[in-house]
Amino acid sequence: MAKIPSAQEARPAADAGAAPARAADAAGALETLAAQLAATAVERDRLGGHAAAERELIRASGLLRLSVPTAYGGAGANWSTVLAAVRRLAEADSALAHVFGFHHLQIAGVLLYGTPDQHAYFLQPTVERKLFWGNALNPLDRRVVARAELDGYRIDGVKSFSSGSVGSDLLTFSAWHKPSGTALIAALPTGTEGITVNPDWDAFGQRQTDSGTVRFDHVRLESVHVLQAPGAEPTARATLRSQVAQLIMTNLYLGIARGALQEARRYVREDARPWFAAGVQRHADDPYVQERFGEFWLRVQAAQALADLAGLKLDAALARGPSVTAGERGEVAVAGAQAKVLAHRAALEVGSELFDVTGASSTASRHGYDRYWRNARVHTLHDPVAYKIRDLGRYALLDQLPEATAYS
Amino acid sequence: MAKIPSAQEARPAADAGAAPARAADAAGALETLAAQLAATAVERDRLGGHAAAERELIRASGLLRLSVPTAYGGAGANWSTVLAAVRRLAEADSALAHVFGFHHLQIAGVLLYGTPDQHAYFLQPTVERKLFWGNALNPLDRRVVARAELDGYRIDGVKSFSSGSVGSDLLTFSAWHKPSGTALIAALPTGTEGITVNPDWDAFGQRQTDSGTVRFDHVRLESVHVLQAPGAEPTARATLRSQVAQLIMTNLYLGIARGALQEARRYVREDARPWFAAGVQRHADDPYVQERFGEFWLRVQAAQALADLAGLKLDAALARGPSVTAGERGEVAVAGAQAKVLAHRAALEVGSELFDVTGASSTASRHGYDRYWRNARVHTLHDPVAYKIRDLGRYALLDQLPEATAYS
Amino acid sequence: MAKIPSAQEARPAADAGAAPARAADAAGALETLAAQLAATAVERDRLGGHAAAERELIRASGLLRLSVPTAYGGAGANWSTVLAAVRRLAEADSALAHVFGFHHLQIAGVLLYGTPDQHAYFLQPTVERKLFWGNALNPLDRRVVARAELDGYRIDGVKSFSSGSVGSDLLTFSAWHKPSGTALIAALPTGTEGITVNPDWDAFGQRQTDSGTVRFDHVRLESVHVLQAPGAEPTARATLRSQVAQLIMTNLYLGIARGALQEARRYVREDARPWFAAGVQRHADDPYVQERFGEFWLRVQAAQALADLAGLKLDAALARGPSVTAGERGEVAVAGAQAKVLAHRAALEVGSELFDVTGASSTASRHGYDRYWRNARVHTLHDPVAYKIRDLGRYALLDQLPEATAYS
Amino acid sequence: MAKIPSAQEARPAADAGAAPARAADAAGALETLAAQLAATAVERDRLGGHAAAERELIRASGLLRLSVPTAYGGAGANWSTVLAAVRRLAEADSALAHVFGFHHLQIAGVLLYGTPDQHAYFLQPTVERKLFWGNALNPLDRRVVARAELDGYRIDGVKSFSSGSVGSDLLTFSAWHKPSGTALIAALPTGTEGITVNPDWDAFGQRQTDSGTVRFDHVRLESVHVLQAPGAEPTARATLRSQVAQLIMTNLYLGIARGALQEARRYVREDARPWFAAGVQRHADDPYVQERFGEFWLRVQAAQALADLAGLKLDAALARGPSVTAGERGEVAVAGAQAKVLAHRAALEVGSELFDVTGASSTASRHGYDRYWRNARVHTLHDPVAYKIRDLGRYALLDQLPEATAYS
Repeated sequence: MAKIPSAQEARPAADAGAAPARAADAAGALETLAAQLAATAVERDRLGGHAAAERELIRASGLLRLSVPTAYGGAGANWSTVLAAVRRLAEADSALAHVFGFHHLQIAGVLLYGTPDQHAYFLQPTVERKLFWGNALNPLDRRVVARAELDGYRIDGVKSFSSGSVGSDLLTFSAWHKPSGTALIAALPTGTEGITVNPDWDAFGQRQTDSGTVRFDHVRLESVHVLQAPGAEPTARATLRSQVAQLIMTNLYLGIARGALQEARRYVREDARPWFAAGVQRHADDPYVQERFGEFWLRVQAAQALADLAGLKLDAALARGPSVTAGERGEVAVAGAQAKVLAHRAALEVGSELFDVTGASSTASRHGYDRYWRNARVHTLHDPVAYKIRDLGRYALLDQLPEATAYS
Repeated sequence: MAKIPSAQEARPAADAGAAPARAADAAGALETLAAQLAATAVERDRLGGHAAAERELIRASGLLRLSVPTAYGGAGANWSTVLAAVRRLAEADSALAHVFGFHHLQIAGVLLYGTPDQHAYFLQPTVERKLFWGNALNPLDRRVVARAELDGYRIDGVKSFSSGSVGSDLLTFSAWHKPSGTALIAALPTGTEGITVNPDWDAFGQRQTDSGTVRFDHVRLESVHVLQAPGAEPTARATLRSQVAQLIMTNLYLGIARGALQEARRYVREDARPWFAAGVQRHADDPYVQERFGEFWLRVQAAQALADLAGLKLDAALARGPSVTAGERGEVAVAGAQAKVLAHRAALEVGSELFDVTGASSTASRHGYDRYWRNARVHTLHDPVAYKIRDLGRYALLDQLPEATAYS
Repeated sequence: MAKIPSAQEARPAADAGAAPARAADAAGALETLAAQLAATAVERDRLGGHAAAERELIRASGLLRLSVPTAYGGAGANWSTVLAAVRRLAEADSALAHVFGFHHLQIAGVLLYGTPDQHAYFLQPTVERKLFWGNALNPLDRRVVARAELDGYRIDGVKSFSSGSVGSDLLTFSAWHKPSGTALIAALPTGTEGITVNPDWDAFGQRQTDSGTVRFDHVRLESVHVLQAPGAEPTARATLRSQVAQLIMTNLYLGIARGALQEARRYVREDARPWFAAGVQRHADDPYVQERFGEFWLRVQAAQALADLAGLKLDAALARGPSVTAGERGEVAVAGAQAKVLAHRAALEVGSELFDVTGASSTASRHGYDRYWRNARVHTLHDPVAYKIRDLGRYALLDQLPEATAYS
Repeated sequence: MAKIPSAQEARPAADAGAAPARAADAAGALETLAAQLAATAVERDRLGGHAAAERELIRASGLLRLSVPTAYGGAGANWSTVLAAVRRLAEADSALAHVFGFHHLQIAGVLLYGTPDQHAYFLQPTVERKLFWGNALNPLDRRVVARAELDGYRIDGVKSFSSGSVGSDLLTFSAWHKPSGTALIAALPTGTEGITVNPDWDAFGQRQTDSGTVRFDHVRLESVHVLQAPGAEPTARATLRSQVAQLIMTNLYLGIARGALQEARRYVREDARPWFAAGVQRHADDPYVQERFGEFWLRVQAAQALADLAGLKLDAALARGPSVTAGERGEVAVAGAQAKVLAHRAALEVGSELFDVTGASSTASRHGYDRYWRNARVHTLHDPVAYKIRDLGRYALLDQLPEATAYS
């Protein structure tokens, strides 16, 4: 049976015991990390590629274990706390916030799909060796196939849009199983023989999300690695994983909106000059500038209130354990969908309109203010907002809960 | 000294003891009352004027004492509860919800501005005799003047936009005191000699709010009636009264939006036919209808989440008692302003756009669906939304809290 | 064969020769008529019902013959001119503008569907006796059926939403012909035996459009009355009639928007007071009021530019006579659809938002300012805007022209 | 007296006679040029900097003389034609469209501010040698100062935001004249001793507009170079130059919106896959995709209709020659302002929302689709849209024409 990789062991003593044990410590670590990422975010956005050093900062922060249950040495934070961390990091750097959030999403996947033995098998090393998770799950890309073998599977093919795969230690992935017409879900060390990660992500935003292409060449899968076998019907609880994913994105968008608003505020107060026709001494006293900030504020506050509610609903549903019903799961999906649409809009609108208050000089490349829009625009395309709105309409009109899919 | 009026004593035994003592009873009474008001709302909107019979239904519900502290025989509900009741009634009938809400607002005024003696003086009879409060406070209309006399004042003049004044038992009002250049605030039985209420309200919406004109002819004011003397600087706590008023309006708008959405939903499911070009069997399956309901839902949910948060902030600030600071008061004002803008928009937009899904036949007068827009439109003009947005902008940009005025 | 009715002959000498012969005269007559309608529009909107006296003012204006070719004694105006008249009247009174516009639409129907003999048969008396046309064409209501008889048809059934039917002299209508699975289109004097017009229109807006229900009891139809026989495929030119109808509505919406803007402007300049927090002496100097007028202006100007272009396209297509192609007809439909959507939005938005600049006092019933929204709201439901936008999308994306239907 | 530079003479025989003499030729040359620019636009946007080769393509097209009167060898096109060319080029490459448009703007400046002698002095060489004009006029940057000398001025200082300055042959610029408290406007060969152009433009959009910083070190100005002397009050006609500038920007935004729409259309038809939940075979059949294209279309058509009207108004005002009044000039400014706001919005909205229909894969850097938003966002900040809307509001409400400034 494959062993969890020890590549990380070579790294300077990653002492899990030194990681924040209490909420206050985690909060402090988060602020430190956010400040570290902010310091280089504009420059790294320009460069794109793999942020190796910043991933080490995340690792060193101790926050990789945030969502891991205490039984396995983790901080045992609930999802509201993890989502708040994603939001905070996204204010500073939404690409690495995505890497961070998707690491925890894979942990959620292990917890929701796996057996207790698998929890221990994967999560203890995750904490002990501060391992980073990535994914190769894109369900719309069925080019990776699984063929059953004695006590396991053989995996072949290529998977696109694999966030966090570059530089990861462990990988959750899906593979299409033709006989059953379904996908299996599994996890493996990224360094497993036959797995190649191609750092070919080249979008105009979220440039350091390490969303490469993962290639599987005759990769052997043992049963301990299989989180969901082909043909198995996931429980209502297991399908909450999509909601975890959706809320990570929601809070990431919200973080972008908040970051844009904060920077617009700083620029208007410190750097901008009033328009000659405004007749004011300070740009911040321009009535139209104040109005625009009022509108920004409204978008952010509305999205935030719904995101917070959705996080609490997710926590409550997860707290119900295996007894959570499809109906309860559906209510989480509704709460998540409404929060996601508003966060999506807040990020795009504040990210684009902030320039109406900061003005022409703020478009200089050195400020990097276009990254808010670019990051929001790329990330909000994960799944089409039109179908989120349709789902909400079906609920409002027909009491129909969103179908449990990888996207809703 | 004037006595609280006994006119109500003639009414069929209003036994306060029979009023709901517990939350469950209050909830039941509220649902019953909402259903009673809904049954005649369309017809009464058409007629306008004074809804005498429905005011008696409100009185009989026992809910007039909802916000009165238990010490004076009231239900002692917090404001979140009272606001939820306003919201619920406004789904059915936003004019009487306003009468109901402003009754409680006057009680808040007595509690926030008055002395403990005044609390007892005004609120015990309010509960015992199930008295209805109205107002004549419009601060922008300074035609009512107070002249100091031995141990009191003499009041003369006319006050417009006096919601709930017609048919009220007690009246809170303001009067301009020229020597100090400030207004006094006082309360009197509506039946006091020299007070005349003219039921001249004739707007195209909120037609049964009893928002008449109140005339004072040489009305004598004793010191027990004076809640705030001229020149007195109100405490931060006292100025929370404006926030109670703003949140009553917020929840009223939200109730309109919710009522419109519910009725649109019913109509689309039960009465509407699909458009021939849609290619669907049920109108509710039209993709554009579903999308529109999604947008309605988003507006209502966002406004509701912010309204709920603002209600909780108000409760917390009131719970702090006299020690509440101007800063804490300002935070309530920010929370209220953001909720109010979204509720304002939700009510107007759902009230107008619902027809895009219900279609031409739904404009028949008998449905009365235009009342959502008309009621929202009239009521949302209480104070200009542009200045709420400006206040939010000043807070977002400059950390400047809204000035404590009668409107913010 | 039925004779065109002479009921009008009893009326005080309607001398067609006295009607405006030249454009300048028509323009003067139009301004006079608009002023006459404006004088009573608020009061008549309140009353609803049939505006008999105002219909006589329209008749006396000489403008009923505006669209009739000069060969039949008409003014021979092109459609851009007729549409401008609809727009102008709708500024003052959109209900009677509809009656006026739909009168001309029926004339267009006769010209586009009828033979030269039918043109003379129907239009000469129209001019000579100043006859008013109404309609009972609603194609979605198939309850009126035609049964073939010797040299004609027998008509039975009921037709809803028949604009202008009450008080009309002549009526265009459609009847379902079961054997062919198509409708015939015909015209008859409204006074024909067996035709009953029920003035049962009771919507909350466009209250004096005389949009009653028309009942046909065994009504005899001669062949001269049949403008389109069952099963006949209309020419591309004939189907331009829907575009005439759509552009009448477009210009009607635009007239509402313009009327609302003009009245808002007058009120702000003459009657409104500045908000205390604005710090300006005149309400018109409030920066947010100015901004809002800028937005109103933009909506009206954009809609107007597209409406003007569509009118010119219609004129050009009609000028091509029978040789106009389906493609050219489709281009008119695209131009009309885009103008209609913007006019629809302009009317609703200015009609609702004008209150944000005129304020609470402007909601007094005597001003009747809510009629802009009510009239726009009712009339814009003629056919769903969502499908106009879809049609534009199909054109923009797929070069697909709108299908030639009664609505596009 | 300085001579117009001969640096261009070294270039391969620029035979003005070979340039398009007729409208059809110009149209053909325009299409060829647009295709040439389109071929490399994505790559050049990535690189930024000076597009030397593409400037030579523009020069070779013969279109630099488009706006020059025929008397000086130009094509004598009216401004509607020049603006249409800007619009067309901006579909392909809005940075070089700006360089092209601002070249013609400087020619307009010479014609509007200069004497007939100056027209000949500057424009004959412009045509003969195919000279490129740039500008250093930014009126908000007063660091360049003019000091009077015998028969001329001495110029010193630095001017930011100088579009088209890098690589230009001639330069229009303004210099602050302290004694009069006004600016002079002048033109000089860019190669004049003491003029240094610093290619330091580094915004995130419109990256190849050559908007460098121009430094003047003791530059000698003869009287022939002075288009407007300090203290001289420009005529109403001369102030039309701002409107030429505003309409160049308007058509540039419109070109961006059109380019984005065309590319979105191509991608949806050729490259995009349907969303799994849509239940359609072609992405172009998704009802929400069609709706979105409908909205894109509306924005572009509305902006275009108003831009076309504004161009015609500008042509008419210019055709009136020196007799054009301030009122007529103001009407052009209103027409321009309304077109500019809609074009601004169309470019930003289509440029951002196109991704909602093209989807995640379309964010790959190689497509360069983010350049629409980036170019629109940077260019639309030239002057604040809020004050355009305010100007329109003042006109709609108060009949107040926009003040004649460099921006309105």
